[in-house]
Amino acid sequence: MKLLRVGEPGAERVGALQEDGRLLDLTGVLDAGRAWTFADLDAARAAIAAGGLPELAHEGVRTGSPVPRPAAVICIGLNYRDHAEETGAAIPAEPIIFMKMPSTVIGPNDTVLVPRGSEKTDYEVELGVVLGKQARYLDSAEEGLAAVAGYVVSHDVSEREFQLERGGTWDKGKNCETFNPLGPWFVTADEVADPHQLGLRLWVNGELRQDGSTSNLIFGIGEVIRYLSQFLVLEAGDVINTGTPAGVALGMADPKPYLRPGDVVEVEIDGLGRMRHEMGAA
Amino acid sequence: MKLLRVGEPGAERVGALQEDGRLLDLTGVLDAGRAWTFADLDAARAAIAAGGLPELAHEGVRTGSPVPRPAAVICIGLNYRDHAEETGAAIPAEPIIFMKMPSTVIGPNDTVLVPRGSEKTDYEVELGVVLGKQARYLDSAEEGLAAVAGYVVSHDVSEREFQLERGGTWDKGKNCETFNPLGPWFVTADEVADPHQLGLRLWVNGELRQDGSTSNLIFGIGEVIRYLSQFLVLEAGDVINTGTPAGVALGMADPKPYLRPGDVVEVEIDGLGRMRHEMGAA
Repeated sequence: MKLLRVGEPGAERVGALQEDGRLLDLTGVLDAGRAWTFADLDAARAAIAAGGLPELAHEGVRTGSPVPRPAAVICIGLNYRDHAEETGAAIPAEPIIFMKMPSTVIGPNDTVLVPRGSEKTDYEVELGVVLGKQARYLDSAEEGLAAVAGYVVSHDVSEREFQLERGGTWDKGKNCETFNPLGPWFVTADEVADPHQLGLRLWVNGELRQDGSTSNLIFGIGEVIRYLSQFLVLEAGDVINTGTPAGVALGMADPKPYLRPGDVVEVEIDGLGRMRHEMGAA
Repeated sequence: MKLLRVGEPGAERVGALQEDGRLLDLTGVLDAGRAWTFADLDAARAAIAAGGLPELAHEGVRTGSPVPRPAAVICIGLNYRDHAEETGAAIPAEPIIFMKMPSTVIGPNDTVLVPRGSEKTDYEVELGVVLGKQARYLDSAEEGLAAVAGYVVSHDVSEREFQLERGGTWDKGKNCETFNPLGPWFVTADEVADPHQLGLRLWVNGELRQDGSTSNLIFGIGEVIRYLSQFLVLEAGDVINTGTPAGVALGMADPKPYLRPGDVVEVEIDGLGRMRHEMGAA
C-alpha cells in the first residue's frame, strides 16, 4: 500500500493511493491521528480487498506527513562513508544517534523555515524507516528488519552553526521548527523489494546536489534497529532517519551553498515518491 | 495547586491534593491524558473554588507521572558549576541541550530498570520545569519564566558508558527505558515562591549523595527557556530538566558507586515532594 494523509494540519484524513491515481478513503479503518501497528495496516489491506471504499478527493488538497505524529524520531549520523568524509568526521565504529522532536515533522510540500539568525541551514535526503511494532532488546538484524512497517522520504534539515558551533550535542541544529518534512507516501515494506538498493536524490533550485544509494549505508536498516533497541525502546509509528549520503552544503567549497528563503528543495527516493518544498523565513 | 495522577499506567485519573491530605477528583475538568495549558489549570482552580468535587481514593493506589506524557523532554547539561567540575567538563559558555524520549517518563515510585549490559547506571536529581504555553523566539528571560506552568522533581537517570564511551551524542545513555521518573506532584508556579532558591537532594540506600540548591544554576530557568526558544518550539506540557548539582557516581573516586538492581533511590526538592524508586533489571 501507498498511504497518504490529506487535509489541513491536524485535520488530515488517510487514504490508499491506487495505480490509477484514485485515493481510497480509509477513514474509519485507519486512525489518521495515531501511530499505526502491523495489525492496523492489515485491517486497511482487508478493507481495500473487500472493495466498496469511497474515493477521497485530493487534487488541490494539502498533503500532510504520511506518518501520524510519531512518539519519537531517531536519527543515525554519518551513516554513509562519503558523507562522513566530506564533513571531515571519522567513520563511526558504531551507529551515532541523535533525536528530532516529533513536532518538527511536516508535510512533503509544506514550507520549511530558515530559523532566525541562521546562515547555515543545510539539507539532507534520508531514507525514513517507520516501525510497525515495539522493538526492545532485539537479538538480530533480521528481527530489526521484521519490525519495519514501511518507508518514507525524509528530509533531515540541519542548521550547521547551531549543530556544531554552539556547544554540546547536535540537537540545537536538528530541532528547529519545520525541520523534518516526510512524504509524500507511506510505502509499506512489502512494496519495497530491497530497501538497501534505493537511489536517493536531492535538488536545490533544480540543481542535483545529492545522488546516492542506500546500498552505501554503513549500518544497514535491520542492524540499526537491533542496535537502537539495546539502548531505548522503539514503538510502532516511530521514525528512524537512517543517514544522508554526500553532497550537503557543509561538505562543499566556500562559499558553501546554504539554503535561503525562496530556495526550492526537491527530495526523492526510488519508489517512495518526491517531495518539493519552498524555503521561507521563521 | 498540587496535582497528582493516580491509577495504573495509561489509566491514571487526576486530582488536586489538599492540605488535609484529601485528593479532589478533577476528572471531567482536567484531561489526565493530555498536556495542560494555563487555561486548563485555571479551569481546575475554578472547579476547586466552586466546591463540591468528589474525593478520589489514593491510599494504596499507584502514583503516575504528574505530567501527562509530554510531547518533548528537553534537558540542560552541566548547568551547575560543581557538577561540571566533578565530571571534568568545561563550564559551558551557553546552555548544552540534549533530549529524552517522552516514553522514558514514569511515575515517582515506579521501578527504574538498569539496562542490560549496564555497569554505569547513574543518578541525577533535577528541577523539572513544565510549560503552560508555547515558547517560540522569546525576547527575554522574563518571558521565559512567564511560560512556566509549574515544577516537578525529575530524576534524569543516565548510563555513563552508553552516554560517553559509545560514540556520538549523549542520547544513548539518556533514553533507556524508565529513565525519567517524575513526581510525585505537579506544583503550579504560583505555589513556588522562588524557583531559584530550592534545595535538591538525592539518597542511595539512605546515604545522601547529592545536596544542592537551584541558586547555583549557571543558566536560570527563564534564560534557559528564552535560549531554547531560539532553536526549537516548546509547547504546553513540555518538560525541561534543568541540570544536576554535584554528587553523581561518575564524579566519585573508583570504584564509583553506580546503581545496581535492588538499590533504593530517593529524590527530593523543597516544596515539590519526594520520589522513592527501587532499581530493577531490564
